[in-house]
Amino acid sequence: MVAKLRSYRLPATILAFTAIGAAALFLGRPAIAQAAGVEGETEFVLNTFAFLIWGALVMWMCAGFTMLESGSVRTKNASMICLKNIGLYSIAGLAYFVIGYNLMYVDVVGDFIGSFNLLYESSEAERALIDGNGDAAAVVVEAVVENGHATMSDWFFQMVFVATAASIVSGALAERVKMWPFFLFTLILTAVIYPIVGAWTWGGGWLADLGFQDFAGSTIVHGVGGWAALAGILVVGPRLGKFRADGSVKPTPPSNILVVTLGVFILWFGWFGFNGGSQLALSSAFDAVSMSHVLVNTNLAAAAGVMSALAISRFVLRRIDLFAGLNGAIAGLVSITAGPTMTDHWWAIVIGAIGGLICTLGIRLLERLKLDDVVGAVPAHLFAGIWGTLAVCIAAGGDFGAQIAGVAAIGAFVFTAAWLVWKGLALTVNVRVSFEAEQLGQDTAELGIEAYPEFVLMPEEFPEMPAPPPPPPEPEEAPAEA
Amino acid sequence: MVAKLRSYRLPATILAFTAIGAAALFLGRPAIAQAAGVEGETEFVLNTFAFLIWGALVMWMCAGFTMLESGSVRTKNASMICLKNIGLYSIAGLAYFVIGYNLMYVDVVGDFIGSFNLLYESSEAERALIDGNGDAAAVVVEAVVENGHATMSDWFFQMVFVATAASIVSGALAERVKMWPFFLFTLILTAVIYPIVGAWTWGGGWLADLGFQDFAGSTIVHGVGGWAALAGILVVGPRLGKFRADGSVKPTPPSNILVVTLGVFILWFGWFGFNGGSQLALSSAFDAVSMSHVLVNTNLAAAAGVMSALAISRFVLRRIDLFAGLNGAIAGLVSITAGPTMTDHWWAIVIGAIGGLICTLGIRLLERLKLDDVVGAVPAHLFAGIWGTLAVCIAAGGDFGAQIAGVAAIGAFVFTAAWLVWKGLALTVNVRVSFEAEQLGQDTAELGIEAYPEFVLMPEEFPEMPAPPPPPPEPEEAPAEA
Amino acid sequence: MVAKLRSYRLPATILAFTAIGAAALFLGRPAIAQAAGVEGETEFVLNTFAFLIWGALVMWMCAGFTMLESGSVRTKNASMICLKNIGLYSIAGLAYFVIGYNLMYVDVVGDFIGSFNLLYESSEAERALIDGNGDAAAVVVEAVVENGHATMSDWFFQMVFVATAASIVSGALAERVKMWPFFLFTLILTAVIYPIVGAWTWGGGWLADLGFQDFAGSTIVHGVGGWAALAGILVVGPRLGKFRADGSVKPTPPSNILVVTLGVFILWFGWFGFNGGSQLALSSAFDAVSMSHVLVNTNLAAAAGVMSALAISRFVLRRIDLFAGLNGAIAGLVSITAGPTMTDHWWAIVIGAIGGLICTLGIRLLERLKLDDVVGAVPAHLFAGIWGTLAVCIAAGGDFGAQIAGVAAIGAFVFTAAWLVWKGLALTVNVRVSFEAEQLGQDTAELGIEAYPEFVLMPEEFPEMPAPPPPPPEPEEAPAEA
Repeated sequence: MVAKLRSYRLPATILAFTAIGAAALFLGRPAIAQAAGVEGETEFVLNTFAFLIWGALVMWMCAGFTMLESGSVRTKNASMICLKNIGLYSIAGLAYFVIGYNLMYVDVVGDFIGSFNLLYESSEAERALIDGNGDAAAVVVEAVVENGHATMSDWFFQMVFVATAASIVSGALAERVKMWPFFLFTLILTAVIYPIVGAWTWGGGWLADLGFQDFAGSTIVHGVGGWAALAGILVVGPRLGKFRADGSVKPTPPSNILVVTLGVFILWFGWFGFNGGSQLALSSAFDAVSMSHVLVNTNLAAAAGVMSALAISRFVLRRIDLFAGLNGAIAGLVSITAGPTMTDHWWAIVIGAIGGLICTLGIRLLERLKLDDVVGAVPAHLFAGIWGTLAVCIAAGGDFGAQIAGVAAIGAFVFTAAWLVWKGLALTVNVRVSFEAEQLGQDTAELGIEAYPEFVLMPEEFPEMPAPPPPPPEPEEAPAEA
Repeated sequence: MVAKLRSYRLPATILAFTAIGAAALFLGRPAIAQAAGVEGETEFVLNTFAFLIWGALVMWMCAGFTMLESGSVRTKNASMICLKNIGLYSIAGLAYFVIGYNLMYVDVVGDFIGSFNLLYESSEAERALIDGNGDAAAVVVEAVVENGHATMSDWFFQMVFVATAASIVSGALAERVKMWPFFLFTLILTAVIYPIVGAWTWGGGWLADLGFQDFAGSTIVHGVGGWAALAGILVVGPRLGKFRADGSVKPTPPSNILVVTLGVFILWFGWFGFNGGSQLALSSAFDAVSMSHVLVNTNLAAAAGVMSALAISRFVLRRIDLFAGLNGAIAGLVSITAGPTMTDHWWAIVIGAIGGLICTLGIRLLERLKLDDVVGAVPAHLFAGIWGTLAVCIAAGGDFGAQIAGVAAIGAFVFTAAWLVWKGLALTVNVRVSFEAEQLGQDTAELGIEAYPEFVLMPEEFPEMPAPPPPPPEPEEAPAEA
Repeated sequence: MVAKLRSYRLPATILAFTAIGAAALFLGRPAIAQAAGVEGETEFVLNTFAFLIWGALVMWMCAGFTMLESGSVRTKNASMICLKNIGLYSIAGLAYFVIGYNLMYVDVVGDFIGSFNLLYESSEAERALIDGNGDAAAVVVEAVVENGHATMSDWFFQMVFVATAASIVSGALAERVKMWPFFLFTLILTAVIYPIVGAWTWGGGWLADLGFQDFAGSTIVHGVGGWAALAGILVVGPRLGKFRADGSVKPTPPSNILVVTLGVFILWFGWFGFNGGSQLALSSAFDAVSMSHVLVNTNLAAAAGVMSALAISRFVLRRIDLFAGLNGAIAGLVSITAGPTMTDHWWAIVIGAIGGLICTLGIRLLERLKLDDVVGAVPAHLFAGIWGTLAVCIAAGGDFGAQIAGVAAIGAFVFTAAWLVWKGLALTVNVRVSFEAEQLGQDTAELGIEAYPEFVLMPEEFPEMPAPPPPPPEPEEAPAEA
């Protein structure tokens, strides 16, 4: 029950080792000679530090998404993507602190949702320790240590996860979603939607009871982000001219491929924190072995994703495609995220390779369906996430039914909730920029800051568009601006 | 007395835990059952590792400053900023090793300044341990462990801090300060000026005795950098044409907004090391809890800084301004840096949000005063740093008088010293590039390396300047080149 | 015998400390009062974590190489460099897992080469621990802990090293080597050539027996990469028009200097993991002191390399050259990599400074020899690596003969093997793009993805080339494409 262990297994570990250690000591056996366990404050310190350092690496993934997305969009919308990403990370951090964490982890009443208390806090004992600047009674220290890790170190680690989910949305909807509606959606996603899914699973809710396994969030994080993005894509509609009247697809290549590549490297690097930190502990030989296993599998799956995506791109796209390879890395990473612990290494390679294929084919599929996902977020995060969540059972055994139930339930809930929110926003404040603003680019029209103001850029490619209709497209979802 | 603790508390901790541990063991009480403390070499290893890994993250902040600044300046000066930044980091590292650290931490005689010994070194016991390749007598190990952490791990952590202070200056003075005078100033700042301030505070000098609190350096690092930058701005004068004859301000938007955004993400990421590592220890439940508290507060303050800066920019700049939001993140981070340990989380949000406001308003204020700070370093680091240093008392109690005394004394000393150095350089070697070099750009005129040589750039925007006067502007501060 | 210690010293350390600890405990002496050692699982956890976190930082260096190289090449080849780099990291990770690690570390039979077993794995005890999700018998835990660190954590750390060696090649041969031959070469380098050198040294083979010392791989990693690059340069030949008929050298300045600078900062940052992690343990005061020493020396050498390269560039290139300074940082880092542990700090400065000089002069030398190394990889990695490997003896004593033997043997083997592979590829599948493809750029001709498709770029600089001969140049090494 890896999923449930995400927050509950530490105290058990402590008890176990304390018992063993104490027994050994008092039985007069040479305890040290037989692999002395990690004890007391050392255990607490190591668990906490793992949350903090791996969590910091996951925060860094937000920079990766920002680079991946801002290099992928056309130059005229790159500043807006930067703003959306630093904004969403800020909003996610505040919303998850004020509301989200409690909904996800505190008193998951009825197994569906947690507490609506505001402002998550350290335990009383911890606050006593801090306020006393460390000069605390032994009983206070003991009460603190009992938790296995510092409360807020866990919060920090969970917070960067919700930010990851939100990051996925911004790329998919780039180049046409207005800033304020996007930020409103982010607020709801990070304060309510993601935490509810989290309560069902890592919070110990009904899906955890069912046996649903998702080690670091192929579905819980990447699936949630992907479904939210897909709902947005449907409501907001494609970019102007992306799908031509003759059925062909207008290519919109990344405007700065170096920055995209940098973003993918950042994500790969940060993923070691994402998956490695999801061991949630670093205080026993088991934790250390498992974390090593996780990092190796994470790297193998990503590498396999790159190579399979590059290979398949020869057939699907008729050329070795760098962008496919970069997305393949992400798909490989997402695929292994559900079960990097118990999966054999060669299975990690297979899972990642299939993830890379799914992503490349998925990008094609979306184009066929006339769904405009600017950076391929849905194939890389949602499609590969579903595959990864199911692959756990193939590679390491487990309850297939629980996995399917989890994927379906989370998908249905998130897609519905996200669609309602997007639709609600579309009908009230309007989610899409005006026809003119989209042609001009959001940077100039909405933000007033160009990404590359001193560089001479190619003239507009709009001449090849069909004759511009006087009313904006997608009138149902995106009514004309006042 | 957090400030003083920066270097002196470890041995005390060791003693305490050793005493408790030893007592418990020999009194026959079940020591392990009540949260066994971290002991001996484990403590030493954890403290040292925290310095190293967090210190490495702080070094990474130099890349953040480099990106922030090189993306903010006009393309014609971007290479020069890259050179200045890698140069200043190198100079800071060498100067702090040869001179600075001793001035700051060794024998702070009379509480005003340390030792002028050259070349800081490991302790004798440590060298014996290294030279013996680990095969050392128990007494040597004991002597090493007594220090609480490896001597040079602390040096490493302190070194990256002085580099941070120096990084602040390069951005503010970009686009017109000559390279060699800038490097000379950096040398003096990092070898002498910063270490003297450090001796007063973290070194255990008179301000520490007074009760001045500055956990990770809102004033000691960011204030020092900000004052040094402000003095330079006054001496060097504004860029050509920045302030027009009609009183209006010529906009000089960032030339590469993706790179600026990347820089801010790097800084945010690195700040977890900056503030987290300033706990200076990782060997007790207290350290772990406090470090977690610090990271959470750091993130909340930065997030609040972004949102408040974006919000206020609507009123001050009449648009949501990405650059304001990015600077808001930095201001939020600087604001919380003085007291992230004992401050409640919701206070961290408030402190960061006010920091973001101050920064955005400060940028406006400097423009009104016709002070040309290219990247907003003075508002983000100095103004927010002052606010953060005072906010410690508001949020967590403490001696307001000591805080004001510290801010004032450090400000007076650094500003005066920096002004004298800048003025001295201006009168001797000249600190400002020639009129022609400034028009042409430092990259071509001074360095011979363009930042983007293959890209077609916009033609010069100088036509809108007032008629060029034959003698260079600012003749008082910047006499014409020979 | 630092080199051999790379994989074999941990159990010894465990035994030593276990013995001391046990003895102290049972002799009734106040064990804790004299620096209790790190024991059992704590030791295991710390050693493993050091491999993982420092290894993750080394992986990040691949992003550094990618940025350094993609910013250094002309824009028309920048996408291809991105592809090559993410591809080579993927190939290296898979090849080292399937073949390389076994060749390097497992049963180094006859001291020349390891085992040809496929697919490296965790120990049986570790797999029992993982499969049991941590619920293991004490005897299993003991068997796991005995190894000193998790098996796969060591694999992870070694894997990122082989990727580093491969990264060096891509930059040197940029702008003219075809993708598939490059990937084939990478496969052979990472699966066979590098592991054989590794077996001789870190694997405990004949060079280790001889006393060859190379702490983190000045020769074993950077020398190997440099020799492989040099062989490629000779076989593939210079870029079109690089060396003009009149003997002059056509300047090809970096196309995006910000990205190059970012790459160097990434490498510097990652090098703390490269050298720090090569301590291979973090479980005693010795390890902590030594690792601190290593990080400080690494930083001092890099800083000195920057400053010396900048200074010498005034004389060699007649201007302060940013690109020289950036390469000086890398050369300084490579130089100190062979012996950062026992070298005094001021020796680190000297070694790094000389490394910077060698690199700057080496770039000039290669140009004189009409060898076209696009990013200066051979001077920065091979020349500085040779210097660093020999400098160990100057700075810290040791067997000069063993060092020379190691440098010579590794150089002869790698250069010969790499030359044969490059030559074999040239004669079969052809390693060089066609004349037309090279003029057009690999991005458009081979990949179909431009790096900056929306930016207006300078017109081709080919007019200044000599009259284009109908057959492609270098017909011997690079036969015309079919």
